Amino acid sequence: MTVKLFAFAASLRQASWNRKLLNVAAEVARAAGAAVDVAEFREFDMPLYDADLEASQGIPAGAQLLIRRIRAADGLLLASPEYNNSMPGTLKNAIDWVSREKPAALRGKSAMLLSTSSGLVGGNRGLWALRIPLAMLGVHVQPDMFSLAQSDKAFDATGQLADPVVRERLGKMVQGYVRVATALAGS
Amino acid sequence: MTVKLFAFAASLRQASWNRKLLNVAAEVARAAGAAVDVAEFREFDMPLYDADLEASQGIPAGAQLLIRRIRAADGLLLASPEYNNSMPGTLKNAIDWVSREKPAALRGKSAMLLSTSSGLVGGNRGLWALRIPLAMLGVHVQPDMFSLAQSDKAFDATGQLADPVVRERLGKMVQGYVRVATALAGS
Amino acid sequence: MTVKLFAFAASLRQASWNRKLLNVAAEVARAAGAAVDVAEFREFDMPLYDADLEASQGIPAGAQLLIRRIRAADGLLLASPEYNNSMPGTLKNAIDWVSREKPAALRGKSAMLLSTSSGLVGGNRGLWALRIPLAMLGVHVQPDMFSLAQSDKAFDATGQLADPVVRERLGKMVQGYVRVATALAGS
Amino acid sequence: MTVKLFAFAASLRQASWNRKLLNVAAEVARAAGAAVDVAEFREFDMPLYDADLEASQGIPAGAQLLIRRIRAADGLLLASPEYNNSMPGTLKNAIDWVSREKPAALRGKSAMLLSTSSGLVGGNRGLWALRIPLAMLGVHVQPDMFSLAQSDKAFDATGQLADPVVRERLGKMVQGYVRVATALAGS
Repeated sequence: MTVKLFAFAASLRQASWNRKLLNVAAEVARAAGAAVDVAEFREFDMPLYDADLEASQGIPAGAQLLIRRIRAADGLLLASPEYNNSMPGTLKNAIDWVSREKPAALRGKSAMLLSTSSGLVGGNRGLWALRIPLAMLGVHVQPDMFSLAQSDKAFDATGQLADPVVRERLGKMVQGYVRVATALAGS
Repeated sequence: MTVKLFAFAASLRQASWNRKLLNVAAEVARAAGAAVDVAEFREFDMPLYDADLEASQGIPAGAQLLIRRIRAADGLLLASPEYNNSMPGTLKNAIDWVSREKPAALRGKSAMLLSTSSGLVGGNRGLWALRIPLAMLGVHVQPDMFSLAQSDKAFDATGQLADPVVRERLGKMVQGYVRVATALAGS
Repeated sequence: MTVKLFAFAASLRQASWNRKLLNVAAEVARAAGAAVDVAEFREFDMPLYDADLEASQGIPAGAQLLIRRIRAADGLLLASPEYNNSMPGTLKNAIDWVSREKPAALRGKSAMLLSTSSGLVGGNRGLWALRIPLAMLGVHVQPDMFSLAQSDKAFDATGQLADPVVRERLGKMVQGYVRVATALAGS
Repeated sequence: MTVKLFAFAASLRQASWNRKLLNVAAEVARAAGAAVDVAEFREFDMPLYDADLEASQGIPAGAQLLIRRIRAADGLLLASPEYNNSMPGTLKNAIDWVSREKPAALRGKSAMLLSTSSGLVGGNRGLWALRIPLAMLGVHVQPDMFSLAQSDKAFDATGQLADPVVRERLGKMVQGYVRVATALAGS
C-alpha cells in the first residue's frame, strides 16, 4: 500500500525557510515510498473566520479546496513557523475553517510536524501549541517533531540540509512517520 | 489613579455571546473605578499575516489602530471564544500583527481573560492557550479567568447575567483584576 | 494479532473513581480483543526522583517493575485524576523515573488517556497536560480522550457506567483505540 | 516597603545547577531591595500525595513547613529543572500537597520562574508547563522567565554567571520582577 501524504508549509512568505524544510522532508517521504502532494499555503486563500460570513456564504472556496486535499490524503506533512510561542494565526484560521465542515476532514488522519527558525530552538514551541487543536480534531500527531535551528545557515546552495548529521536525523524521523502513517491508514 | 482598560471580544459575529459577556464585565470594571474603552473587533480590519506584505506595505492600518488603542491603556479586558481547544485564528492573527511593532505594545500591560460558550466548560481551554502568546509578549495575565457555560441560557432580556451567583462571581473577579491592574499600572 | 495493553489508574487512593473508570475501560478493551494487564499504581512504590539517589542506588525497584510492565505491552490504558489543572505529581514522578532507563520503555507505545472527577469537566485539562511528557517520550497518545464528569453519580452499584449514552461513547472510543493500538503494534 | 521573597530550587540534587542559578538570582533580588528567604527543597520532605494518607494523617509536616514559608512571603523566586518537557514530578507533588490547605497559601502571591539545563533551550519548556498549576492556584507568574542554556559552562569558579551579557539580562529581569512583586504586594 502506498500511503498518501498532503504537505504544505504554513507560511505565505515567498522565501520561507519552512517551505525549504518541507520540500526536503517531502523528498525523504517519497524516497520512503509515500506519494506526496505538495501544496502552497497561498493556494488556500480564505478570509478571517467569521460565523456570520459562514452563515451567509458557507465555507469559502479556499478552505473547501484545503478540505478536499486533506480528504484525499492519509496523513499530513506540515511545516510551520512559530509566532509568539504558538502557531501562526494564519494556520489556526485555516484549521478553524476546515473544522467547520462535517464530518471533520482531519479526523483519523496522521500528521508529522516540522519547523525551522533563525533561533536556537527552531520553532519547536510553536509545534507544541499546534498539537492541541490537531489532537482535538482527531489527528494522530506523530510524537517526534523535527525542529531545525538557525535556518539561515542550515541549507546548502541546492536546498539540501548542509549538516549530514541533521540530514540523517530528519531522514530517520520522516521514515519513521511514513511507517506509522502507513499502519494507521490501514487501520 | 484611574486605571485605563481597553476591552474587546475577539469575535467578528454580530450576535456574539462573548461580546455580551464583555459588555457586562466592562460595566463592572467601570463601577469599580476603571475607565474602559470598549472596541469592536471588526474595527481592526487586517489581512492574514504575510511577511512579504509587511515588507512591502508595513503594518496594516487596522493593526496600527489596535496597537494605538492598546498603548493608550494600562490593561486589557479580553473575551474570546474557544475554537478547537485553542484561541481563534483571528485573534492570534491580530496578536501576530501587533507583535511586529517595536517596542511591543503589549509589553508590561495587564489583562483579564473571559470566555463563554454554549458548552459546559465555557471556553476555558481556549483561554489557557491564549495565555501563552500573551505571556510571551510580556503581558501580566490575571490568574483568575472567567468562563461562562451555556451562554444561550446565561443572559436575561436586558443583557445581564441571569444567575445572581454567577453575577457575583464575575463581580468579584473583575474587581480583583481592577485592583491588580491599578497596582501594576503604577509600578 | 492480539494487542497487549497495560492499564492502571494514577491514584493511590483505595476508593479511586479513576480506578473504577479504568476497570470499565479494561473490560471494554478485552471485549474488543485486547489482552489487558491491569495493575495497581501502589504496586510501583518509588521515592521522589533524586538524581543523587539514582547515582548511588540506580533506578528503584518499583520503577523497574513499572518499566518491565510497560515493555511487555504494546500500549497503555491510563486513567488519571487532575490536580491543579495538570497531571498528579505522583504520576509525573513515575514518568520521570521510567524515563531514566535507556532505551526508553515508553518509546513507540500507544496510549489512551481517561479521567474522571466530581466536577463538570471530568479532569480533562489534566489529560492535556499529561499528553506533553508522553509525546516527548515517543508515545502515540490517542487523540480521543475520555473524561467523565460527576464521578460520584456516574457509576451504578455494579461498577458499570450508569448512563447508556456515556457507556456507548466509552465503548466506541476504546474500540477505536484498540484498532489503532493493534495497527501501531504491527508497524 | 520591603518585598519578601521566598526562594528555592526544585531539585533534590546536591550539585544542582538550578540551585546555583537560584542563588545568583537571590543575590540580585537582595541588591534590588527585596528580603529573600532561601530554602533547600530537601527541607520540605514529604511523601507522594495520597488522599487516603491525607484523610488519616493530614497534610505532612514537610508540606506544612513549605506552606508556612510561602505564607510569610509576598512572592516566590523558583528555579526548576525540566524533566520530559514538563515540570519535575517532585515539584508538582509539592504543589499538590500545598494546594490541599485552605485558604490556598499560593493565592495572590507573585512568582518569577528560572531554569537551567545543559541543553540549548535551558529548561524553558518545563517552565511553561509549570505556569499552568501556578496560575490555576492564583499566582501572578511574571511573564518574563529566565532560562540559562549550557549550565555546565555558564558559571565561573565563584558561582557567578560567566557571561556579562547574560548577567545583565538576569539582573534586569530580576529587578523588573522585584518592582512588580512590590506593586502586587501592596495591592
